Amino acid sequence: MQLPDQATAETVDVAVRELLRGRRGVGAWQAFLRAHATLMRELGTDLTTKVNLSLGDFDVLAQLAAAGGELRVTDLATRVFSSRSALTRRMDRMVDEGLVRRSRADADGRGVVVGITDAGAARLLEALPVHLDGVARLFVELLDDADLETLDRALTKVATDCSFG
Amino acid sequence: MQLPDQATAETVDVAVRELLRGRRGVGAWQAFLRAHATLMRELGTDLTTKVNLSLGDFDVLAQLAAAGGELRVTDLATRVFSSRSALTRRMDRMVDEGLVRRSRADADGRGVVVGITDAGAARLLEALPVHLDGVARLFVELLDDADLETLDRALTKVATDCSFG
Repeated sequence: MQLPDQATAETVDVAVRELLRGRRGVGAWQAFLRAHATLMRELGTDLTTKVNLSLGDFDVLAQLAAAGGELRVTDLATRVFSSRSALTRRMDRMVDEGLVRRSRADADGRGVVVGITDAGAARLLEALPVHLDGVARLFVELLDDADLETLDRALTKVATDCSFG
Repeated sequence: MQLPDQATAETVDVAVRELLRGRRGVGAWQAFLRAHATLMRELGTDLTTKVNLSLGDFDVLAQLAAAGGELRVTDLATRVFSSRSALTRRMDRMVDEGLVRRSRADADGRGVVVGITDAGAARLLEALPVHLDGVARLFVELLDDADLETLDRALTKVATDCSFG
């Protein structure tokens, strides 16, 4: 058998399958990634088509709203889907479009705070029902109550406990 | 009660909670998003620290390997985590670094094909065991067999059937 560390471009698929073989939970992990990628693509297309808002912008507005209207940029970065570098560009554009505002943190003067504007709030509330209908059709309605309960419990546990710390 | 479509920056959190209230499956959906965001952040930090490869680059190499070594750019875009615009920049850099190569599609001359190189294959096989250990510790080992089975079945169904079509 080809040893994994000797694989070339031609044999890498075999080497990868060998490394995955017999590992517990690989099916669930791959289903998790595939479901997320497919859902984000479908929901993103739906939101852009129906209300002309990208899923990434929606995500920022929703996270700010859930946090009571504003967040330090460093905290926002840990909650949104966008990578950090993409988030910086996104923030610049969203400030220009009037959906969010940026200010220095008030208390200790350290860090930058991003807040949702009235225009951003209106945009979010236009998009949210469309997004929730999409989530219902593409995720919730495909699953029964027992599955939803298991997903809620198991993935809450993962989100809470997953750390190398 | 504040009507959702009248919310301002100050009242948007209340309006959002009102729109979410009583919706079936919202807990499972939020746990799904939170688990994904947290896992990607932790696994990304781990991979960068240990083998100096970003999770986005790893994802591209892994998708190419799983597809037998190469993919049309348009097909790659539907499989990776990166957004389309981020993928273009990522491809440019990965070609410069010698991890992938780009060529015109052979058969009909349409579209661009991306292939993994020998250097990319070696890089993937260095990173994959580290990544799989991370997935085991942060995801698989937190769940019992019944939960993994439910996640596999339920999320495969979502990934397969989620479409507005």
